[in-house]
Formats: sequence, C-alpha cells, structure tokens
Amino acid sequence: LLFSAPVRAAILAVGSELLSTDRLDTNSLRITELLERHGVELVRKSVVGDDVEAITAEIRACVAAAELVVVGGGLGPTADDVTREACAAALDRELAEEPEVWALIEKRFAALGRTPSVNNRRQARVLAGATVLANAQGSAPGQRIDLGEERALFLLPGVPYELDALLVAELEPWVAARSTGAGRERRTLKTAARPESEVDALLEPVYAEFGREALTVLAGAGEVRVCFWATGEREARGRRLEAIATAVRRALGDSIFGEGDEATLEETVAHALGERRLSLATAESCTGGLLAERLTRVPGASAWFPGGVVTYSNREKQRLLGIDAELLARFGAVSQPVAEAMAQAVRREFGVDFGIAISGVAGPDGGTAEKPVGTVHVALAGPGEEVADRRVQLPGDRGRIRWLATQVALELLRRRLLKITREGAA
Amino acid sequence: LLFSAPVRAAILAVGSELLSTDRLDTNSLRITELLERHGVELVRKSVVGDDVEAITAEIRACVAAAELVVVGGGLGPTADDVTREACAAALDRELAEEPEVWALIEKRFAALGRTPSVNNRRQARVLAGATVLANAQGSAPGQRIDLGEERALFLLPGVPYELDALLVAELEPWVAARSTGAGRERRTLKTAARPESEVDALLEPVYAEFGREALTVLAGAGEVRVCFWATGEREARGRRLEAIATAVRRALGDSIFGEGDEATLEETVAHALGERRLSLATAESCTGGLLAERLTRVPGASAWFPGGVVTYSNREKQRLLGIDAELLARFGAVSQPVAEAMAQAVRREFGVDFGIAISGVAGPDGGTAEKPVGTVHVALAGPGEEVADRRVQLPGDRGRIRWLATQVALELLRRRLLKITREGAA
Repeated sequence: LLFSAPVRAAILAVGSELLSTDRLDTNSLRITELLERHGVELVRKSVVGDDVEAITAEIRACVAAAELVVVGGGLGPTADDVTREACAAALDRELAEEPEVWALIEKRFAALGRTPSVNNRRQARVLAGATVLANAQGSAPGQRIDLGEERALFLLPGVPYELDALLVAELEPWVAARSTGAGRERRTLKTAARPESEVDALLEPVYAEFGREALTVLAGAGEVRVCFWATGEREARGRRLEAIATAVRRALGDSIFGEGDEATLEETVAHALGERRLSLATAESCTGGLLAERLTRVPGASAWFPGGVVTYSNREKQRLLGIDAELLARFGAVSQPVAEAMAQAVRREFGVDFGIAISGVAGPDGGTAEKPVGTVHVALAGPGEEVADRRVQLPGDRGRIRWLATQVALELLRRRLLKITREGAA
Repeated sequence: LLFSAPVRAAILAVGSELLSTDRLDTNSLRITELLERHGVELVRKSVVGDDVEAITAEIRACVAAAELVVVGGGLGPTADDVTREACAAALDRELAEEPEVWALIEKRFAALGRTPSVNNRRQARVLAGATVLANAQGSAPGQRIDLGEERALFLLPGVPYELDALLVAELEPWVAARSTGAGRERRTLKTAARPESEVDALLEPVYAEFGREALTVLAGAGEVRVCFWATGEREARGRRLEAIATAVRRALGDSIFGEGDEATLEETVAHALGERRLSLATAESCTGGLLAERLTRVPGASAWFPGGVVTYSNREKQRLLGIDAELLARFGAVSQPVAEAMAQAVRREFGVDFGIAISGVAGPDGGTAEKPVGTVHVALAGPGEEVADRRVQLPGDRGRIRWLATQVALELLRRRLLKITREGAA
C-alpha cells in the first residue's frame, strides 16, 4: 500500500510550557527528520497550551490540512493533560477507560515497587477505534487513530525519550509502508577540535564542484558538522550523496571522526579501542569525571575501560597517582609535567595500554596572569613512546571549558589510535 | 486605552525553511518574552510554509483565537513570499502598491548604489487600511492592521534583526500602551526523585485553595517542577505568588530542593556541604563518573570535594577500594553489601565526612532475572552512623538510568544533610 499522492503531514505540540520562554518544541525536529527521510511533506507545525478548546480546534485544523497528523504531549496523569479529551472531541469519538491499558499501567508501577494514583487512570483512556501503541518508557501509551486508508492521527507522549521510542516503533513503520521512497536525504560528516572557518576554507574544492547550496557547515560544542543534501529517487540521491561525501573526505581527511548527526567522539574512540583490543584509564582534575563519564556512555565500555580517578585536590594527586609533591609545588597542578606524570601514573596503576590526564583552570575563579581561566593541559601516555601533550587555551564558561577539554583529550587519543592502525597495516 | 480584558496573542511564523530540520523558529521566543513582560497571554504559535492557502487558513485561525496576532516572515521580494497576499485574503482586504513605500525602497537601494528589481515592487504592496511600519534594516516594511480598538494584526519581517528592530519600535509600544502594567510572573519550586503523579496528588490542597489553573506540574529527568503564575500589579502578584509558594512548601515539605527553573540538585547539595563545612568523595561504577562530574559543575567544589574514583571493573573495586573479592563473588558488584563497602572505603580512603557509592546495571546488556537493567544500589556512609542504602529500579535507556541513579544519590545525600542541620539546631 503506497501513498497514491504525495503525503502531507502536520505536527502539533501540546503544552502550556511550550508557549513560555523556558521551553521550545524540539520534538518536532526529530519527527521532521523522519518525515523528510520518507519523502513526506510537512505543511504545518503548531503549539497550543493545555486547553481543551484550543487543542480541539487545532487538531481539526491539522486534519483539514494533512493526511498524517502527529500530536505530541498532554498524555500525562495530571488534570491539565487533556489531549486525549480534545482529540476525542475533534474527531467526534468516544473516549473510555481500557481495562487492559490500566492493567499495564498497574503492572508497570508494580515493577517499580509503586502503586499508580487515581490520576493515572486517565492515562488508560482510549479513543474508540484507536490502536494502542505500547510505551515501554512511560505510563501513557500512544494511540493511532486511522482516518481512512492513507490517513491517520498519531497521539504520542511529549516526553522526548518516550516519544523517540514510539517514533521508531510505530510512526516510522507506518510511514515507511506507504512511502514511495522519493524523499530528501541528508548526510553529515563530523570533525572535532578544528575551527569552523578552517573547515569551511578546506571545503572550497567541494563548493566549487557541487555548488555552495549543496552543503553547509555548522559549528557547536567543539565540533563542526558538514551537512549535505540530495533529493529525488533513493538510488540517484544516494549516488549524489556518496559523491559529495567522497569529496568532503578528500578535503578534510583524518579530521573527520564520524558520520551522522549523532556521531560522538567517545563512540569513535570506543570503537577504535575495542577493535584494537587496547585499554584506557583516565586521571581528571578540572573536568571532574566528565571524560570518564563520556567514555562510559558507550555500551560495553567495560571491555576496554577498567576505570579512572578524579583527583580534584593536590593531596589526592599525590595519594592516588603518586605525583611528587615537589613537582606540584614547582610547576603547579595545571602544568605539562604534572599532566604527564598523571597520565603515566594512571596508565601504570590501572595496568592499561593508555593513560590520559586532564588538568586545567575551568573557572570562574582560579585563573592567574600566567594560567588564565581556560588554560588546560592534556597528556596521553601510551605503549613504548613519549607522552603526547597539548596545552590549549579554551574559550567560554566553566561548563564549556570542561566540555572542550574532553574534546581535546578524545581527539588526541583518536589521532593516536589512527596511527596504530596504520602502523599495524604497514 | 487599556485592555478591558486579558489579552491573548497568537504568533505565526511563515517560511518553508522553518518546516525543515535545519532551522527552528526562534523569533517566537523573543516575541513571547515581550508579551510575558506586559502580561499578554500567548495561546498558540504555529509555523506554515510559503503557501498562500495554508497561510490564509492559519491567519484566520489566529484571528479567531487571539486579539493580538503577530505574523512574521514571507515579506521578501521573491515569488514564494506570499504572506501579504494571504493576509489580504484572510482579512478580506484589498492589497495595492503604495507609491510612497516604493519610493522608500528605491531610495534605500540607491543609498547602497543599486537599483531594485521588478520583484521588489511586491514589497511595496500594502493592505487597505494598514499602517506602514518603517523597517530601517531591510526593504520590506512591516504593516499593522487594526481589527478593532483592542485588536490588531502585525505583519513583520522574519529576518531576526529586522524583526527585533520592529518589535522594539512598533510592537512593544502598542502593547505597552494597552497594558495595565499587570504582567504575568512565574515561580518554580523543584523536587527530585519523586514521581509526577505523587507530587500532583500531594498538591491537591493547593489546587483546592488556589484553583487548578494556578499551578502546573512538569516532569523531566528525575525531577518534577511545580510552576505557578500570578498576574496583576507587581505587589499584588508578588503576594499571591508568595501565598502559593507557602502552600506548595506546606504540601511538599522537604521534597522541595530548590527554587527556580535552573535550580539543580548538585547546587543544593554543594551549598549544604559548604555551609556545614563537610566533605564528600564518590565511588562510582555504572554512572562512570557522572556523579563526580555533576558535583564539580558547581564552582568552588574543591572546597568540599577532594575527588573520587570510577571503579568500573571488579579488579579496580578491589585495588582502589579494597573491596573483598569474596564479597564481590558472593553478592555481585551490583548489591547492597558491595555498594556499602564502596561508600565506606571511599570515605575512609579520601578522609572525608561522606562517602557515596553507586553500583548498578545501566544496560543495555548485563541484566539478569534477579538484577534486570535499571537495578541500582546507592550507599551513603557518613559520620557515626550506619550506612544508608537505596535499591531502586530505574526506567529508561542507559543514559537515563545513569542520570536517575545520580539523582537518587544526590537526593539521598541532600536529605541526610537536612537532618544534620536539624540535629545541629536541636
């Protein structure tokens, strides 16, 4: 069953908080990405507050404008969660408590050692004729209401990770089964720890070959993304994307660490360590555990990461890593000799292939004329070689300096691991 | 001329690019901020593409829902800039080229040494009865269409800096002249590690006293925010907010950890430790450093945090913390005895007042029937007392389980610190 005509979609986000300055509807971006991938045209998106009449009117407008309507939010247990009721009114359908759904909610609470409150009963209410969409991440299930062969309204939770699970499990299969495959597709290649202007300048040959509008460079959080698009049938579009990707890779070489918006440096490093059966331990001062935390975001990190230390005080640098008190007194904790000694010590103590250390001034206090806020030393101790060092001066506030420091450390490690492959391959 | 009734506003952003994944409508946030400042309630915001029919329908919906309608975008010179035409259709008004506006456009181009193209003539088209709003930053002027004494539609450019200039020069004075000075003010109290439905149920007396619409409960990331509003003159509004806050504090008691949307558990804990001159060290397994990282986000953490260890492997639990191999073999790393031993060891080794430990199954692999993914043990060892424990079963994916585990740990510590004050005060 393919869509007989190009399908239009409308997205509605429900929640009074989304009408304040505190919160922005960003769920719609992930839904849009899914729609684009399958060639479904988004014709409108809107936000209304937790108001039955407003939601009702808006759902009617969505149904009038589009074949596929995705409504997110307002499925919680509280009195102001009224999307179910508004949807029933807009579509003129009954709404009734579904015993099976209520049983699931009770079971879910029981598994967490809790009892649902009376308010949770509202989450078991289902529209007449709706298909209940199981939500493993939360108590309110989604609902799909078919409005004809190629028309449907999806009622989904607004909590991002609950929504995301239902997008994958329910919305995408529905759209994919009806898609002709002639969509707009996007690819992204990512680089780290290089300035945007530098990446942009290196891409000149790619602009010359494919046109300025074929790609764009987006900077953020110590990374630069190179995004490019193609439209048309799957195959032709794939060929063009591959041609652009090849040109970008030629222009940027080893600077590219991953593909896709979600690619992270820690995943690339994790993969490289796993593949080479190498292990790593961390010794952190100013980053306070962020480097270890990023590395252990990757499932299966225990295969190559036995652990690390956060030596925030000089005393702990001495006690846990055996850093010489005299070295600390002479050069200060934020110095190349101390970072090097930390990297070597953590490598030795944990019995791993690589020891990586970060010491710096994250601010807002603690800066001096010689070592202003943002001064960070990174050191990497590996097998059979001198310790690699970086001294960087990082911009931004405490949070940004800490993040960028881990970017520098991960990028240093990634490039070191690249060399090992090459040596191994040579 | 004051608004005789609370004024509602609707914001419409026009532009097909705002329906892609590359761009987000952020103009509306700045408009919202202006509206909030003057006590105008935003009831809807929406985005439609450059399509006359879609824009027309949407403007009609906005006018039906709100007294003040702000439309931004689609005033450019190209063929797909059709907001003026759609607005004329929606309001059933004539649209004609205004010679004075055209003269201004020609003058503007001349100043830049250029000549306007034929396309630019479209930018000189003005709705019948509209007031032209000079745009010093760009070629398309804005337009204000009065729809009654206290009703108006503003047609504004979508380019951010052009829009911002017109917000200041035109929208704000119009709103201010009609505002009673009775703005809307908001306060937020935050709780952690309690389910939304539980918080909601506890708030029943507050709902009963102040009305359902006076406050709302927002859940996210192991926290529940209680937000409430008041409108009216500054003083009266302040009194009402204080009254609601008092009632919320009475209902939720010690569960409230902070005030304001930006309040974090780690800041509260950091403040409590600093105030009591107590110190803390961390021993983490499944959270991989996240707890230490959160604690050291707080500037000045070195005053009470000497450091911590990430003992990801059993070997490191033995080596760094002296955990008995037999204990690990008998109960497993994810167990109350091991978490307790970790907390006691890290307290002793770092010579601090409190040692806190987390051990759990973050997933996606490693779960068993007895200890499924999400099983987490938290232990807190403090001065002169038994070790406090929590075994929790946390929902969500790896990232969420890790985050929630640190919420549980920080909340356990916060409540322990609360007791110390009381004992001290007693």
